Amino acid sequence: MKQFLVINGPNLNYLGKREPEIYGSTTLVDLEKSLKTKGEALDLSLDFLQSNHEGVIIDAMYKANETCDGVLLNPGAFTHYSYAIRDCIASLNIPVVEVHISNVHAREEFRHTSVIAPVSAGQIVGFGLFGYEMGINALKNIAEGKE
Amino acid sequence: MKQFLVINGPNLNYLGKREPEIYGSTTLVDLEKSLKTKGEALDLSLDFLQSNHEGVIIDAMYKANETCDGVLLNPGAFTHYSYAIRDCIASLNIPVVEVHISNVHAREEFRHTSVIAPVSAGQIVGFGLFGYEMGINALKNIAEGKE
Amino acid sequence: MKQFLVINGPNLNYLGKREPEIYGSTTLVDLEKSLKTKGEALDLSLDFLQSNHEGVIIDAMYKANETCDGVLLNPGAFTHYSYAIRDCIASLNIPVVEVHISNVHAREEFRHTSVIAPVSAGQIVGFGLFGYEMGINALKNIAEGKE
Amino acid sequence: MKQFLVINGPNLNYLGKREPEIYGSTTLVDLEKSLKTKGEALDLSLDFLQSNHEGVIIDAMYKANETCDGVLLNPGAFTHYSYAIRDCIASLNIPVVEVHISNVHAREEFRHTSVIAPVSAGQIVGFGLFGYEMGINALKNIAEGKE
Amino acid sequence: MKQFLVINGPNLNYLGKREPEIYGSTTLVDLEKSLKTKGEALDLSLDFLQSNHEGVIIDAMYKANETCDGVLLNPGAFTHYSYAIRDCIASLNIPVVEVHISNVHAREEFRHTSVIAPVSAGQIVGFGLFGYEMGINALKNIAEGKE
Amino acid sequence: MKQFLVINGPNLNYLGKREPEIYGSTTLVDLEKSLKTKGEALDLSLDFLQSNHEGVIIDAMYKANETCDGVLLNPGAFTHYSYAIRDCIASLNIPVVEVHISNVHAREEFRHTSVIAPVSAGQIVGFGLFGYEMGINALKNIAEGKE
Amino acid sequence: MKQFLVINGPNLNYLGKREPEIYGSTTLVDLEKSLKTKGEALDLSLDFLQSNHEGVIIDAMYKANETCDGVLLNPGAFTHYSYAIRDCIASLNIPVVEVHISNVHAREEFRHTSVIAPVSAGQIVGFGLFGYEMGINALKNIAEGKE
Amino acid sequence: MKQFLVINGPNLNYLGKREPEIYGSTTLVDLEKSLKTKGEALDLSLDFLQSNHEGVIIDAMYKANETCDGVLLNPGAFTHYSYAIRDCIASLNIPVVEVHISNVHAREEFRHTSVIAPVSAGQIVGFGLFGYEMGINALKNIAEGKE
Amino acid sequence: MKQFLVINGPNLNYLGKREPEIYGSTTLVDLEKSLKTKGEALDLSLDFLQSNHEGVIIDAMYKANETCDGVLLNPGAFTHYSYAIRDCIASLNIPVVEVHISNVHAREEFRHTSVIAPVSAGQIVGFGLFGYEMGINALKNIAEGKE
Amino acid sequence: MKQFLVINGPNLNYLGKREPEIYGSTTLVDLEKSLKTKGEALDLSLDFLQSNHEGVIIDAMYKANETCDGVLLNPGAFTHYSYAIRDCIASLNIPVVEVHISNVHAREEFRHTSVIAPVSAGQIVGFGLFGYEMGINALKNIAEGKE
Amino acid sequence: MKQFLVINGPNLNYLGKREPEIYGSTTLVDLEKSLKTKGEALDLSLDFLQSNHEGVIIDAMYKANETCDGVLLNPGAFTHYSYAIRDCIASLNIPVVEVHISNVHAREEFRHTSVIAPVSAGQIVGFGLFGYEMGINALKNIAEGKE
Amino acid sequence: MKQFLVINGPNLNYLGKREPEIYGSTTLVDLEKSLKTKGEALDLSLDFLQSNHEGVIIDAMYKANETCDGVLLNPGAFTHYSYAIRDCIASLNIPVVEVHISNVHAREEFRHTSVIAPVSAGQIVGFGLFGYEMGINALKNIAEGKE
Repeated sequence: MKQFLVINGPNLNYLGKREPEIYGSTTLVDLEKSLKTKGEALDLSLDFLQSNHEGVIIDAMYKANETCDGVLLNPGAFTHYSYAIRDCIASLNIPVVEVHISNVHAREEFRHTSVIAPVSAGQIVGFGLFGYEMGINALKNIAEGKE
Repeated sequence: MKQFLVINGPNLNYLGKREPEIYGSTTLVDLEKSLKTKGEALDLSLDFLQSNHEGVIIDAMYKANETCDGVLLNPGAFTHYSYAIRDCIASLNIPVVEVHISNVHAREEFRHTSVIAPVSAGQIVGFGLFGYEMGINALKNIAEGKE
Repeated sequence: MKQFLVINGPNLNYLGKREPEIYGSTTLVDLEKSLKTKGEALDLSLDFLQSNHEGVIIDAMYKANETCDGVLLNPGAFTHYSYAIRDCIASLNIPVVEVHISNVHAREEFRHTSVIAPVSAGQIVGFGLFGYEMGINALKNIAEGKE
Repeated sequence: MKQFLVINGPNLNYLGKREPEIYGSTTLVDLEKSLKTKGEALDLSLDFLQSNHEGVIIDAMYKANETCDGVLLNPGAFTHYSYAIRDCIASLNIPVVEVHISNVHAREEFRHTSVIAPVSAGQIVGFGLFGYEMGINALKNIAEGKE
Repeated sequence: MKQFLVINGPNLNYLGKREPEIYGSTTLVDLEKSLKTKGEALDLSLDFLQSNHEGVIIDAMYKANETCDGVLLNPGAFTHYSYAIRDCIASLNIPVVEVHISNVHAREEFRHTSVIAPVSAGQIVGFGLFGYEMGINALKNIAEGKE
Repeated sequence: MKQFLVINGPNLNYLGKREPEIYGSTTLVDLEKSLKTKGEALDLSLDFLQSNHEGVIIDAMYKANETCDGVLLNPGAFTHYSYAIRDCIASLNIPVVEVHISNVHAREEFRHTSVIAPVSAGQIVGFGLFGYEMGINALKNIAEGKE
Repeated sequence: MKQFLVINGPNLNYLGKREPEIYGSTTLVDLEKSLKTKGEALDLSLDFLQSNHEGVIIDAMYKANETCDGVLLNPGAFTHYSYAIRDCIASLNIPVVEVHISNVHAREEFRHTSVIAPVSAGQIVGFGLFGYEMGINALKNIAEGKE
Repeated sequence: MKQFLVINGPNLNYLGKREPEIYGSTTLVDLEKSLKTKGEALDLSLDFLQSNHEGVIIDAMYKANETCDGVLLNPGAFTHYSYAIRDCIASLNIPVVEVHISNVHAREEFRHTSVIAPVSAGQIVGFGLFGYEMGINALKNIAEGKE
Repeated sequence: MKQFLVINGPNLNYLGKREPEIYGSTTLVDLEKSLKTKGEALDLSLDFLQSNHEGVIIDAMYKANETCDGVLLNPGAFTHYSYAIRDCIASLNIPVVEVHISNVHAREEFRHTSVIAPVSAGQIVGFGLFGYEMGINALKNIAEGKE
Repeated sequence: MKQFLVINGPNLNYLGKREPEIYGSTTLVDLEKSLKTKGEALDLSLDFLQSNHEGVIIDAMYKANETCDGVLLNPGAFTHYSYAIRDCIASLNIPVVEVHISNVHAREEFRHTSVIAPVSAGQIVGFGLFGYEMGINALKNIAEGKE
Repeated sequence: MKQFLVINGPNLNYLGKREPEIYGSTTLVDLEKSLKTKGEALDLSLDFLQSNHEGVIIDAMYKANETCDGVLLNPGAFTHYSYAIRDCIASLNIPVVEVHISNVHAREEFRHTSVIAPVSAGQIVGFGLFGYEMGINALKNIAEGKE
Repeated sequence: MKQFLVINGPNLNYLGKREPEIYGSTTLVDLEKSLKTKGEALDLSLDFLQSNHEGVIIDAMYKANETCDGVLLNPGAFTHYSYAIRDCIASLNIPVVEVHISNVHAREEFRHTSVIAPVSAGQIVGFGLFGYEMGINALKNIAEGKE
């Protein structure tokens, strides 16, 4: 049974409360519960982390590297400047898939650049919360080494 | 039964023959056949187009706007300069999902900018040919209005 | 009797159907019919072309160079990158007037640069469909060598 | 009877004397006289102002806002840096049409950018003095609300 | 007997008619006839194509990849933005030599950048029509594997 | 009793009439009257100037330098290009406080740069008309040399 | 009684000890004590936080959003790169006022850009520690809905 | 007897009072008196103007064009943005020599660019007030057509 | 006996495990042990810290400022964006020496800029782990005030 | 009999010893000997110079201007910054052809710009040592005035 | 009796032979002879150097620093990139005046930047060979400490 | 016994005489004598070169490549533009260590970029003359292959 860690970065604790016209009204708790269920249906074990602290996310990814088969990461605003997270991902042996809820390319200029993208396994952008499901599927696909 | 058009832009006719270290060895014919089958399993009808001509792609998207429920588009190199395709997508009533086989953010500088991304429904980047399957799923999800 | 060719570039086939808050609701057929009538009142013979293909527009301008007295061109999105159209215009002996329906300078950044402007006879920007009438008048004025 | 103010900005007092290969040999007095006549034929009342002072132009536009139906403005070199004129235009209730005698896009780099264009109703560029006639027509068209 | 395809891109149909101070007065027909003769003297078989359509050039290069030993390409204005042609060249097994009639580095800024140069076998710039002869020689040299 | 000059730059004569969604509906006359009263309550004597002329503002600041204890300046659009006003402020012995009604950093790109900020005593940005009161307080604080 | 949180970002723990020629010799403890007193005189309850940790500041602002009427924030160096703090502020229902002790526009280039300014209610820059008093007043003014 | 106009632009009224470490302590009145005397010794008639108004300087140069043999201009801060003064100089038949008291290239970045330099006859930079004497000599040299 | 703190920033916990072709196979524990021994031979007392948290590093440097004679800092990815660490270093009374294991100038573009370098005492770049020994020597040299 | 000077700039003394994967293993002596022979077969007299000194190359080109019919120049790294060599070439009456062994456009960014190209007769790039032969032929073609 | 060294940089050996429309037809020998005579009339002893070698110019300036009272330098193309000459000038105790024959600001973009200007005593630009006389006068003025 | 060459580039002949606040008062002769002694203590043989000529430095490095085990290079101002020295270093088989006396990152913008750094073995920046000792140690460490 594959094990994945789903990390939500800064400000995603406010999912469902913050700018609903961009992010919808589902809360983080709702999202995690729903993903857990869907993961089980796919024979996957999912763990979850949300943090507004760059260092906490890095520490967690190093730990996941020992115990998990992959990470699904929504880096939030860290996407645009955290070279520390980038270097961390480059150090890991497990794949990290990057997911963004909104279409960042249709928003402010600074959201168009991801310093993380060059080292992530792939990006899923703009599909709302459904993007997390797609990310779990993509991780499963990579972990099973098919295609 | 939902109907989608899968468009592959310039040079994707050489899929499987061109730079296999980047794009793998599956040919375009293989890919389309495999997607057709998977689409049927999802109760979807898929049509396919490959063209090296910007104008042909634009014409096809206008036609699809009358007859289809969505477009899955790998714009190839047009991604980086075809504002004509961008304007076309902005004119359509159906969603267009952008897919890239390789992780364009890990390649040459010019591949980091997509002039199409701001008007597409979402992007799927770097998951190899599996990205097309993800794209079909995403279109289905959008077309069925759930999330 | 002077003869002019009116060329509408990519996506203008969707005039009246696309983004009506920017382009209004008159269709291309309506526009061409109305211009034809107004041209006749000015003792002018007008031909029309719409194409989403850069090469078709270039071929047409070379042909017009043999048979017409001027071209009124709305290059659509080609405005911003088609150096091929620019080089074509620089090769012609007849004047080419550039027209844009909307005020491109009040829209996205990429619409502020025209690679065609330096070689066109003049630009008319932002006056809606009335800009085509102004363009016909300007071509007539140039062709008659007055001012 | 519609009333328009025609404003010529800095250095246009030297029209006909300055760089005739670019601007021709008609003087400002000639131009204004000719426009006045043409305006009357169109049932329009035209007033004229030329100034090398940014502040004088701004003051005049605020006054025109109370008494006129539109402004035809050749901002001369102010085109490229007068954000004060830009803000003024944005404050007015009447349309301001921007006209340039020469094709500024075929000249020095700094002439390619107009800080005024985003807030003007439209631009007419490169048609020589005939551009002023076009501008009057465009203002009339806007004022009469047709298109 | 080696076989090469000589491709002339957009606007080179007007060679000899367009800007003769830059391109001279020899026409494309003259050039191709003269090259054919010179090729035969070198025991080479040359085919020719001119097109203003990006897609036509790409299609032709893929076909040449099956039947020819190399391509001599004057990409015209496509030099500066056609990433589609660039990707095509990168996919081929045969060498593509880039030739420019005029010294593009002594002309407008935008002509200084070639998006094609990084993937072409080499560039020949500024030697007038003699550059085509040099290109044929260079292709022959590459094809014969000497140096 | 401290004496301050309150200068409002270009287009602020239209305060309350111009873009009320940005600037509110209080007129300049209202503002000056209200500030005068508040100044008296603080034992301050306030003078006022509004001008659309850069030169008039500079002349006034030199005069204030002889007779006043400080200047509160809303430079309007001059903020972004008037190096002449900047040099003037750098020449004065009295402090100049810069105030902006709207949050310029949330508006167009060109409003993010102030050529005056490096030589002003401080900036107050985005607090609406209340910013003028804050500015008067800040000038008083500086003039009384406390902090 | 309104309740505000005053947050001092990285390195402000060294206020009074660090670069006194820029920041003066008052310590953070002195500042907070003095503000507390002034707040009480204005019938305001003030809380204080200083942290060198971006995540701690974000967590605190979310908590303040539940319990306070506004935040006065000196983001220190986070001003220039913390898009995470920016996103946090954009999520809050309470106003955040940005304060800088020194005139950042008169210092190094990188200090001229605030990624936080576009989402803060307003900025107060360069008035030394008096800027905190101004900030409290501004928050009070906003909270009381007057202006 | 040659006649020259010496124009001092914005803020030079404060010469001798402003930033003496950069500009010295001689006042404008002293400078003009001293130049007048030196001009007479060279059989030259000198007139003087100082203004903080761009428009006044332009008007004066047009008048000088009718009555003088050349202009010595210290444009002050207008050096860096007054394209209106630039266009004026380009219109004149008499030479304009640009003089700067301080070495502008050793000061702030924005002082390194002169929009006026490309159209002035020559520049004299950094020699203090002696630069004005050099400028008078240079104008005399040009007017007498020697070299 | 001099006392120095050796700080290793984000991801250096993975030294020896991460990208060995760049960083070698010595682990952080090995490095610290080896440095400790070498320090003792030089009559130096060394303490060590590794953290992936920016705030922890800043807090530690303030504490070191009270108890140590200098800091040897490998800021890892914080090198490129942590203005907070930069401001911290500028506040300290003790010297901070910056060390990088690999030659950052031979790697990705973003690694070429150090926001910390302008305020550090000096930089040692590209000498592998031997750079730490060099750093200790340099700190000793500075602390003993010789050179 | 035409006479040409072949100049090899800095570091080309190491040809065949330096980075053989880029430059091959033929030494400079080999190359010059081979070219000499080929030149004689074409009835050309060739002289050779290699220098790492910019001034020596300039001096030699001025001398060649008196005695030769053309120069074939591989400027090595001077290509990218020697405006002195550029000015020299612009002063000569004889043509200078620029040759580069490797495809500089496929290497580091700084190699993409040639400050010499705008004043050279033409460029030959990327054909290995065969490029020198092409250059001799091109010079002969120019010298004989044919084309 | 004051002693100055007049240095002419690269390509000025061709003065009078090179691009006469820019530099006139006086040769360097003529210029130096004429300056010598004029220097004697001013009781000045002038020495001369022309070199195309950056190092020779630097060596000469260090020697002049021991024996001369100032240097008049026309750095030719070194103006735009020789930071070595810049550093040399910054090391000297004697003033260095920079002179350019043509108006470099009216020529190619790269000629607009002087890396030497920030450390030279002053610049004289665009007055033809008369600029050298002005430079001698300026050096004399500086050396005699008047102004 | 290892042999190293210590090269000091342009203007370092003035060490101890030039800008002592930046470079100290030790002369080059002093430095070389002191290094010689320290080298002997480490069983190293050191040779020395100082030159203001780029070509001389390149020639010397090629010679050192035959006879030495490494080069310690202070490239002075050549750091910022000598791609010729860069290419030379890339050609050598022996390591080149780059040393700068002052902290170049704390000085003018142009000193922040080293075109040499990407090809040098490592950089030592800002430690004053002690940096040369560190460089000798680093070279010894590399030459002995330990680390």
